[in-house]
Amino acid sequence: MALIVQKFGGTSVGSIDRMRNVARRALAAQRAGHRVVLVVSAMSGETNRLLALAHEVAKVPDAREMDAIATTGEQVSAALVAMAIQAEGGKARSLLGHQVKVHTDDAFTKARIKSIESAKIFETVARGEIAVVAGFQGIDAHGNVTTLGRGGSDTSAVAVAAAIGADECEIYTDVDGVYTTDPNICPSARKIDRISYEEMLELASLGAKVLQIRSVEIAMKYNVPIHVRSSFNDQPGTIVTKEDSTLEGVVVSGIAYDKGEARVHVVGVEDRPGVAAELFEKIAEKNISVDMIVQSATTEADRRAAITFTLAKTDLARAKSWIETIAKGVGAHEVRYDEDVVKVSIVGFGMRSHAGIAAKMFRTLANEGINIQAIATSEIRVSCLVAAKYTELAVRALHDAFGLQHA
Amino acid sequence: MALIVQKFGGTSVGSIDRMRNVARRALAAQRAGHRVVLVVSAMSGETNRLLALAHEVAKVPDAREMDAIATTGEQVSAALVAMAIQAEGGKARSLLGHQVKVHTDDAFTKARIKSIESAKIFETVARGEIAVVAGFQGIDAHGNVTTLGRGGSDTSAVAVAAAIGADECEIYTDVDGVYTTDPNICPSARKIDRISYEEMLELASLGAKVLQIRSVEIAMKYNVPIHVRSSFNDQPGTIVTKEDSTLEGVVVSGIAYDKGEARVHVVGVEDRPGVAAELFEKIAEKNISVDMIVQSATTEADRRAAITFTLAKTDLARAKSWIETIAKGVGAHEVRYDEDVVKVSIVGFGMRSHAGIAAKMFRTLANEGINIQAIATSEIRVSCLVAAKYTELAVRALHDAFGLQHA
Repeated sequence: MALIVQKFGGTSVGSIDRMRNVARRALAAQRAGHRVVLVVSAMSGETNRLLALAHEVAKVPDAREMDAIATTGEQVSAALVAMAIQAEGGKARSLLGHQVKVHTDDAFTKARIKSIESAKIFETVARGEIAVVAGFQGIDAHGNVTTLGRGGSDTSAVAVAAAIGADECEIYTDVDGVYTTDPNICPSARKIDRISYEEMLELASLGAKVLQIRSVEIAMKYNVPIHVRSSFNDQPGTIVTKEDSTLEGVVVSGIAYDKGEARVHVVGVEDRPGVAAELFEKIAEKNISVDMIVQSATTEADRRAAITFTLAKTDLARAKSWIETIAKGVGAHEVRYDEDVVKVSIVGFGMRSHAGIAAKMFRTLANEGINIQAIATSEIRVSCLVAAKYTELAVRALHDAFGLQHA
Repeated sequence: MALIVQKFGGTSVGSIDRMRNVARRALAAQRAGHRVVLVVSAMSGETNRLLALAHEVAKVPDAREMDAIATTGEQVSAALVAMAIQAEGGKARSLLGHQVKVHTDDAFTKARIKSIESAKIFETVARGEIAVVAGFQGIDAHGNVTTLGRGGSDTSAVAVAAAIGADECEIYTDVDGVYTTDPNICPSARKIDRISYEEMLELASLGAKVLQIRSVEIAMKYNVPIHVRSSFNDQPGTIVTKEDSTLEGVVVSGIAYDKGEARVHVVGVEDRPGVAAELFEKIAEKNISVDMIVQSATTEADRRAAITFTLAKTDLARAKSWIETIAKGVGAHEVRYDEDVVKVSIVGFGMRSHAGIAAKMFRTLANEGINIQAIATSEIRVSCLVAAKYTELAVRALHDAFGLQHA
């Protein structure tokens, strides 16, 4: 008899009919002998409706009051799902953030979970009831209602699973699972059966938005297996778990791409120790994160270097004037920007123990005539910045080169 | 510097614009030097919307889950009103049932308040903030969310006022105050400036539905003055308070009428001790409340009596067959029903010390040719059951006879 957490997002509880499906699925798991805890989001559209109401009252509504309003969305869906289970002949009860209790810090609208009490949930499932936990919400040390920020129900679900020591946390969504790459641009993309937390983190942060990054971090920390699967069928999805022997044979697990970054090219920087440090310290002071950084070789003629880096496109407009001032301060001749770039990454645990993976990536891109503008690597990832027009070509070529179309 | 509770019903917070009015009114009281606590209902229509959603899921939704859903209405309006106060430049924070805390029993959908903690409210007003308490809601001993039943926000407001020792509880509504009788049928009806709790209870239970009965009971128990007034203007309304010297001169305070009762006439009952007891004990066993009871004199001829009583029209259909069975058991010949009746009452503290008030009522009705079918009295009330067609005539005649058109 396993203890299972099932999380249903806004689309999965978007109508009374869909709630009935959720109820039937939870009851099926219970009849199979499991103790079942649900974590639910607000009905799709509801959170936006509530926020619009708040914005009608105030242009910049108070964050504490925003959270008091926003949490009603999950409160309603948790109670309705509990009713739907009862209507199907089952036993259930809704549990709100202040009932569970989900303790968070007091950063309203983007609070972080500090701890979750397990007693109420255990009492509930011990009575044979399905516990329906309202996702996305918690309380701070003073009993104020808080929310975890957009997508926070994934985080709620995994944190609840960790707190009660669940055997698995199932995340029901509108896709079948995690794919080797975006199926919209690569028809041979294949659903991944198992993937490690670390790889999932690299894929998520690189743009494969199936799971909230924070939920994967928590799952990794507390070793909670996540099962990402479709709420519209009974097929197994993708298990996100710790690295294990079944994953060893795989060198590259997936290909990600991210069009969210812009390239900044600072030309003619003085070539003296500390210049790069000065540049990036000053950018960091402006609270702007840079990602890939490349410093080109100095030309002998003028002892000047070039520095290339990327930052989020959404930060570029406000950053431009600062960057130009800072660049002048280190003697740069010119600053150039390029927003037509894409970061293509290969991710895989296997590359730690396999030599030549990066080289194979560079060769694959070169064979397609794709010029690499910058390179960044982590232990389990290699990323190349290329012109945006090559996105599909690069992804398909790499997917093919690393044999991802085959299980 | 007074401590004031202001309660706003669903109509008064029915739109964002109206919430701004509520905010301005509360801020005006605060600027006048008072500490202000608001108690708010759900936006009008919202509770019905939520209940309809619940009924879509289940014909008879679970009461606990109903309360979890219904309380979101007040949660949203409390937070929006707090935001509206902030938007006007003031300081405010919403307080939910589990934050205040409003402790109730666990009778979901119709819970009764056991106690209210004052600390959170005092902390809030001590910071110069207006506390905006979500009405209608509380928590039971296990932290389950409860509601006080329809109209429960009046009760919340008075109970909060009692708990914090407020100087006054203002109930804002869509009427100017309490009237000497229904202005719709008696054009000379006049707003009452001051009335005692006891009179208000008699008027409320007799059909003048301005205030929830329970809220008046609590106000009386804890001696909280209630000020019933309009949310659409600044005129003083009606103060409901303990009997005091300013009330002494008034003999009759108001005329109430109630068309909600039906008359049952049981003819030819055996005239032996215990027959009436037997009849009404059996009716009580069916959980049906009877109101006026009259036993007519026995006729010498057959030593049989007639018993007349009234009960709620809504109970009549289900009660008929039982009543007939029970009536036969005490030897009755026949049972007759009459739904075309009205109970007209005069209410006033003064009648305790003034003789002849009842006689004056009977004479007034007789002068109009109105036959009295039954009479019931309490210490501060005399009620007469008459044919429904005389409602307006009786009310106007009594209003005039007791001089209620004059202050």
